[in-house]
Amino acid sequence: MTTPWRERPVGIVGLGLIGGSLGLDLQGQGVEVRALVHRASTAERARERKLASRIEQDPSVLAECGLIVLALPLDRLLNPDPELLAALPRQAVITDVGSVKQPIATLWQQKHPRFVASHPMAGTAEAGVEAGLTGLFAGRPWVATPTEQTDPEALASVQDLAESLGALWLTCPAAAHDRAVALISHMPVLVSAALLQAAEQGGEAASAAALVRQLASSGFADTSRIGGGNPELGTLMARCNRSAVLEALNHYRQQLGSLEALVQSEEWDALQGALSHCQALRPEFL
Amino acid sequence: MTTPWRERPVGIVGLGLIGGSLGLDLQGQGVEVRALVHRASTAERARERKLASRIEQDPSVLAECGLIVLALPLDRLLNPDPELLAALPRQAVITDVGSVKQPIATLWQQKHPRFVASHPMAGTAEAGVEAGLTGLFAGRPWVATPTEQTDPEALASVQDLAESLGALWLTCPAAAHDRAVALISHMPVLVSAALLQAAEQGGEAASAAALVRQLASSGFADTSRIGGGNPELGTLMARCNRSAVLEALNHYRQQLGSLEALVQSEEWDALQGALSHCQALRPEFL
Repeated sequence: MTTPWRERPVGIVGLGLIGGSLGLDLQGQGVEVRALVHRASTAERARERKLASRIEQDPSVLAECGLIVLALPLDRLLNPDPELLAALPRQAVITDVGSVKQPIATLWQQKHPRFVASHPMAGTAEAGVEAGLTGLFAGRPWVATPTEQTDPEALASVQDLAESLGALWLTCPAAAHDRAVALISHMPVLVSAALLQAAEQGGEAASAAALVRQLASSGFADTSRIGGGNPELGTLMARCNRSAVLEALNHYRQQLGSLEALVQSEEWDALQGALSHCQALRPEFL
Repeated sequence: MTTPWRERPVGIVGLGLIGGSLGLDLQGQGVEVRALVHRASTAERARERKLASRIEQDPSVLAECGLIVLALPLDRLLNPDPELLAALPRQAVITDVGSVKQPIATLWQQKHPRFVASHPMAGTAEAGVEAGLTGLFAGRPWVATPTEQTDPEALASVQDLAESLGALWLTCPAAAHDRAVALISHMPVLVSAALLQAAEQGGEAASAAALVRQLASSGFADTSRIGGGNPELGTLMARCNRSAVLEALNHYRQQLGSLEALVQSEEWDALQGALSHCQALRPEFL
């Protein structure tokens, strides 16, 4: 039995929304947190915010850590810095926070013997060193996608970390995770973005560009929210989870087509039946 | 010059969300409100809630009203009760609150000489006699769609009514209104409903039906809200504004197709450009 994770410093790579929130919550539990960041300006601001007790730009800051969370964007997880790789202690448990699991798990299992692919499903509209806040993970799912190669003790450490933050621990195969998040998170970004584009283009085509903007209400605001979100993040999700997103779009196109066909053929009872089904279905997702 | 509208009783036909809210606000201004409702149980509850000073099931309650608001669902506006029609005083100003204006304006201009087609764009998720609340119209658009036949004095009375409630008065042609609301309200219901259906069907196809429900977060909740709303209302919108909804769906399908094509062809810079455009566009609609 190795030393429990909380008795050694926890390392965090990246102090954006997820990394910063982890740092605040873990320090609140009395755990020592050491962080690696990319930029000097981030390090300075993160020190002011006390997101970790040691914050450096040199990967050697991770040397004594027993558990290290890679709180990096998808593209940096998929193209890891060689200096970072070289600095990760072989005995440390390593986990990530990426919203796509198959490519990350495949890559990182080859890079590190104690890697556990995981995804805390917590977020706000904010990003960057100012975004971290306490209590972000409480009551939110934290999904791990272990394989037969995953070290069971490393997996147990990540579970204990997640549960110490109040997260709801789940495990599933990486492929199932990626298809599920494509359906409920990554594809909906495109569905929502297309709505903004359609309102713009349709408004112009109807010579009603100003009117559509004046009349849009809370329903439009809600439906367009994620489509008007961070463009880098939306692009990374589509890029890193491309096949599942295309598959989800296929499902979506079929379903929208079936509703459109009911309007086209004026099958109003059937349309009302479909919308009643949706009304009953939605609470299952809340 | 006829008597100003507020010096005679205002009639409200129907005491659901819109009618009930009108009754509360107008009485708050010291205006006398008389209401016609369909069911005895509604009349009883509306009296308890004091939504109007007189509440009857007999259309003769409208006899002395100078301005009457038809706060009825679209289907009842388009198939008006002959007894209601017979009871509307010829000198009264009549307006409605329907979310589709072309068919209503066409029909009602033939039925009454002082009809003004209008649409207060205020709503909550609630409906029925319990839904009415004070201040519903404040700061919200109230659109009228007058034609050359519209009595200018009647139009001025409805404008004064709307502005007395704090609403933002707008006029536009009925066709432009219907195309605009199709784009920002009626079509988005179907876009949002299809997302719920896709998450259900896609989850089953991926053997991840439970997982999609567990992982859905606030983004999915927002994007699916209007698709999981009142099925009767969603159906009436599509039915009464069918051609504009089909036109809006055409715009939507094209826009979603263009985003999907970028994912398919892995044009990530172009996708990020499109999502950046959406991010900049959304505040114009808020």
